[in-house]
Amino acid sequence: MIKVIILGTGNVAKHLFDTFLIYDNLKVVQVVGRNKETLSLFDEATKTSSDFNSIEEADIYIIAISDDAIPLVAETLTNKNGLIVHTSGNTPMEVLDKNERRGVLYPLQTFSKGQEVDFKTIPICIEAENKNDVKLLRQLSGTISDTVVELSSQQRGTLHLAAVFVNNFTNHLYHIGHKICAENELPFDLLKPLILETAEKIQNLRPIEVQTGPAKRDDQMTMEKQIKQLKNETFREIYSLLSQSIKETYGEKL
Amino acid sequence: MIKVIILGTGNVAKHLFDTFLIYDNLKVVQVVGRNKETLSLFDEATKTSSDFNSIEEADIYIIAISDDAIPLVAETLTNKNGLIVHTSGNTPMEVLDKNERRGVLYPLQTFSKGQEVDFKTIPICIEAENKNDVKLLRQLSGTISDTVVELSSQQRGTLHLAAVFVNNFTNHLYHIGHKICAENELPFDLLKPLILETAEKIQNLRPIEVQTGPAKRDDQMTMEKQIKQLKNETFREIYSLLSQSIKETYGEKL
Repeated sequence: MIKVIILGTGNVAKHLFDTFLIYDNLKVVQVVGRNKETLSLFDEATKTSSDFNSIEEADIYIIAISDDAIPLVAETLTNKNGLIVHTSGNTPMEVLDKNERRGVLYPLQTFSKGQEVDFKTIPICIEAENKNDVKLLRQLSGTISDTVVELSSQQRGTLHLAAVFVNNFTNHLYHIGHKICAENELPFDLLKPLILETAEKIQNLRPIEVQTGPAKRDDQMTMEKQIKQLKNETFREIYSLLSQSIKETYGEKL
Repeated sequence: MIKVIILGTGNVAKHLFDTFLIYDNLKVVQVVGRNKETLSLFDEATKTSSDFNSIEEADIYIIAISDDAIPLVAETLTNKNGLIVHTSGNTPMEVLDKNERRGVLYPLQTFSKGQEVDFKTIPICIEAENKNDVKLLRQLSGTISDTVVELSSQQRGTLHLAAVFVNNFTNHLYHIGHKICAENELPFDLLKPLILETAEKIQNLRPIEVQTGPAKRDDQMTMEKQIKQLKNETFREIYSLLSQSIKETYGEKL
């Protein structure tokens, strides 16, 4: 039985909490957070507290809050015996106190309120300073996910950067597609199967193999025509720059 | 029974052909194409010909070839009684001979060789000059797909532009993620669940509602750190420009 305390009440905290509840070998003994309203989402299934001076004992303390607040919350955990981890992709393990047992448990996924996820499919990137703690994190993570990898803080940062491209930036391209449709009274629903298929295709094939479109074909006429259709100046720049980057990619390849 | 002749032997032609074969009320009487090698993919199930002077009679002639070759192939269809359509998102109906019955059947999807698709989920955009031909296209399209919409050439062009963003450009972002991983010896597989979830999320929620990441939070420190990690100059520009566009989007919204 691994005893866990979660610090934080946001999306990552809630999704981890809901998942931990499923497994008998994991026990969330307490959830601690400042926000009493979001804290109440947890109080049916475990003890909760908004007082950071009353944190109980556990094997692992999981700090699941925004990146810049991690050092502050970590300070409330001095003199604990358990392992202290944060869940941030982009924050080195070193922001945690070096006098404590420290580590990272980074689930590589995008969590939204009310949107259920299957944790088994979510890769969890772990890091810790000593071997026993790596083992403990592997045991915890391996219970909830089928994919656990040990990465250094630098590797995790690089992976997070790649995630910004395939998740944050991709979602913004979806938004641009949505806006083009809305401005022209076309249903965005028409694009949804295409969006899904684009994501599914690269589950088995490399993105470079399945690239299509005017820029790939170097179809200058279509590109010029399409740029003119865009009203938003920034969207025009995005069209040009991504087309240029695609052309460079396939120029390289030839 | 609708009798169809397909002109072209590429991915769209093959996927349409395979789908038509399923339905008893559709009959592909002939496939015509220059490329004898790809033409042979069709000859078990129907008549094929590489001679554009020996095109038979049909209710609908579907020109499924690259955009710039459409007018050329359309010329071989003068004096036919059937309806002549092309399958291009970005080409006006008007490139077809105005003395013929003409129209468009544009399946909004990305087709790859050997990658099966479920046509029922693919939106088909139709256009024709007269009502009876719209009806005929609706009958054909409604057989193979659950979503058929009548769009003007201009509307179809706009939709195609939106598709370039959510499909072509998105796939390029996947490629950038792939490249960042490869350069740092990280498995791209780790990003695949995130990519799928990003696409699935907007099936029910608007992209603008689920945007996350450093640019959305206006987290300047993370953005500067991440740009420095990118070796490729064009990728740096893409990072900056998309971040700027996200900031503008949420600036607008506030």
